Amino acid sequence: MNSTDSNSIEHPADWIAVDWGTSRMRAWAMTAAGTVLASTSSDKGMGSLAPHQFEATLLDAVGPWLRQDHRTPVVACGMVGARQGWMEAPYQAVPCAPAAELMAVPVADARLSVQLCPGLKQLSPADVMRGEETQVAGLLATRPGFDGVVCLPGTHSKWVRLQGGQVTAFQTFMTGELYALLAGQSVLSHSVGGQGWDDEAFAGAIDLALENPAAISARLFSLRAEALLADLAPATARARLSGYVIGLELAAARAYWDGQPVAIIGATTLGLHYGAALEQLGAQSDIHDGEALTLRGLHAAYQQTTGA
Amino acid sequence: MNSTDSNSIEHPADWIAVDWGTSRMRAWAMTAAGTVLASTSSDKGMGSLAPHQFEATLLDAVGPWLRQDHRTPVVACGMVGARQGWMEAPYQAVPCAPAAELMAVPVADARLSVQLCPGLKQLSPADVMRGEETQVAGLLATRPGFDGVVCLPGTHSKWVRLQGGQVTAFQTFMTGELYALLAGQSVLSHSVGGQGWDDEAFAGAIDLALENPAAISARLFSLRAEALLADLAPATARARLSGYVIGLELAAARAYWDGQPVAIIGATTLGLHYGAALEQLGAQSDIHDGEALTLRGLHAAYQQTTGA
Repeated sequence: MNSTDSNSIEHPADWIAVDWGTSRMRAWAMTAAGTVLASTSSDKGMGSLAPHQFEATLLDAVGPWLRQDHRTPVVACGMVGARQGWMEAPYQAVPCAPAAELMAVPVADARLSVQLCPGLKQLSPADVMRGEETQVAGLLATRPGFDGVVCLPGTHSKWVRLQGGQVTAFQTFMTGELYALLAGQSVLSHSVGGQGWDDEAFAGAIDLALENPAAISARLFSLRAEALLADLAPATARARLSGYVIGLELAAARAYWDGQPVAIIGATTLGLHYGAALEQLGAQSDIHDGEALTLRGLHAAYQQTTGA
Repeated sequence: MNSTDSNSIEHPADWIAVDWGTSRMRAWAMTAAGTVLASTSSDKGMGSLAPHQFEATLLDAVGPWLRQDHRTPVVACGMVGARQGWMEAPYQAVPCAPAAELMAVPVADARLSVQLCPGLKQLSPADVMRGEETQVAGLLATRPGFDGVVCLPGTHSKWVRLQGGQVTAFQTFMTGELYALLAGQSVLSHSVGGQGWDDEAFAGAIDLALENPAAISARLFSLRAEALLADLAPATARARLSGYVIGLELAAARAYWDGQPVAIIGATTLGLHYGAALEQLGAQSDIHDGEALTLRGLHAAYQQTTGA
């Protein structure tokens, strides 16, 4: 067990929040009111576990927080509920409230009661999410009347439209994965190394992508050619590449952010870049911490199970 | 030496044609008139050789074709002339005739006289090619009056404008590399496996990319979602993915192919897909065999060295 953080507590947890993704599992000992008592994390992600290994893995992580005479509720979101996870929590079809219909998982240990948050699906255009719906539920818990758009930048960025407390539509973009493949494994890897950044190059790339999205496919190889012919600085090349792929996403997601308030989930460098790009395009956005919203969403789900 | 084909001949070669790329080397024993007497190939590509190893590698491959009392001309194109190759053959700047200024390489063996074809460079938009210029020279040798556009589909597809026997402009697209990364290493790899094809899906994807290039970045993840939710057939997903990336290239290359005759170099499945897409868009194209044009281009370069 590769545990981190504080995992010993004076009082047992009222309930336990779990974010169980493909490569990592994080758990928090919680009070009924939503205060964090302790936390732990491990690299025992869904991707490395067979279905029968989840319960023991969970007990390894949260055992110290359990009472002997009582089933402590555990609410988990993420890939743990995928077909290849602990047990499939079938996607809810939009329009619907996110993370609303929890699925109970049978467990052997009498100290546990485990429920999984379902993902969301959209039939046309076909799309799925699993994990992000809990952050969206957290945002709705924080801002109950929010009618607008949520942007979740990442490996598979999501744009989510909220209306009347429901997700009405969403769209996934492979922007982060595309960037990682191009920057790490393509011929461009020779030209975009290192860690620097170039705000002006990023802004120029965003503008170009919005004005002429097709041109981006012509500009990618130019990053390599300019490195060869004109010693293009790696930080400039990297910022331009990032601006091209994020710009393509923003061009295609215009119907989401145009004239709508945007809540960006992810108080990261990437979230800040999305915020800067949206500001450049005249859209309003604010940025929210992802982990805080995951916990808020899991807390909202827990409150449903108690009827609170 | 991993040689193939017939490499024993009755008469020594008048000259030797070599296509020396990053991963392979191919050589042909030629008559002065351009007839192939014998050929050989090996996996001793530029990428696996240090500069001092090229001459011995060449001798291993073409030794049987050489005369003892005479320097046999060798004309080589491709990455052998890159900075990391045998010796750098500096890029010619466009506009210029392709593969026109050969560079002699000093050799130790008195039976050899080696010359390298230079690549082409364009300063704005920045671009480079090395190897394809010889195929373009071969096309010009075959069709001396050709004013039009050459399309060379591949890992890094090239579009080349020809006027008055010169390359006046060109543009590289990372289409093949992008396809390989998405199909082989992204989340889409689960959805596009196997070998089948779907003409209708390809044509629909081309149309969509031309009408709304930005939409493509939104459609990529849909391939995965449709596979999960609607059992999208892998052959359909693969043809659509191919149509998306080729369509993005064609949208950005419109100024090249619109109203111009297009010569596609590459009588391959990929070349046929480009031909079908161009026909669908109302553009005329014909397809040429790549190896034949490489030999024709090397022959034209050889003829320059003899003043023929």
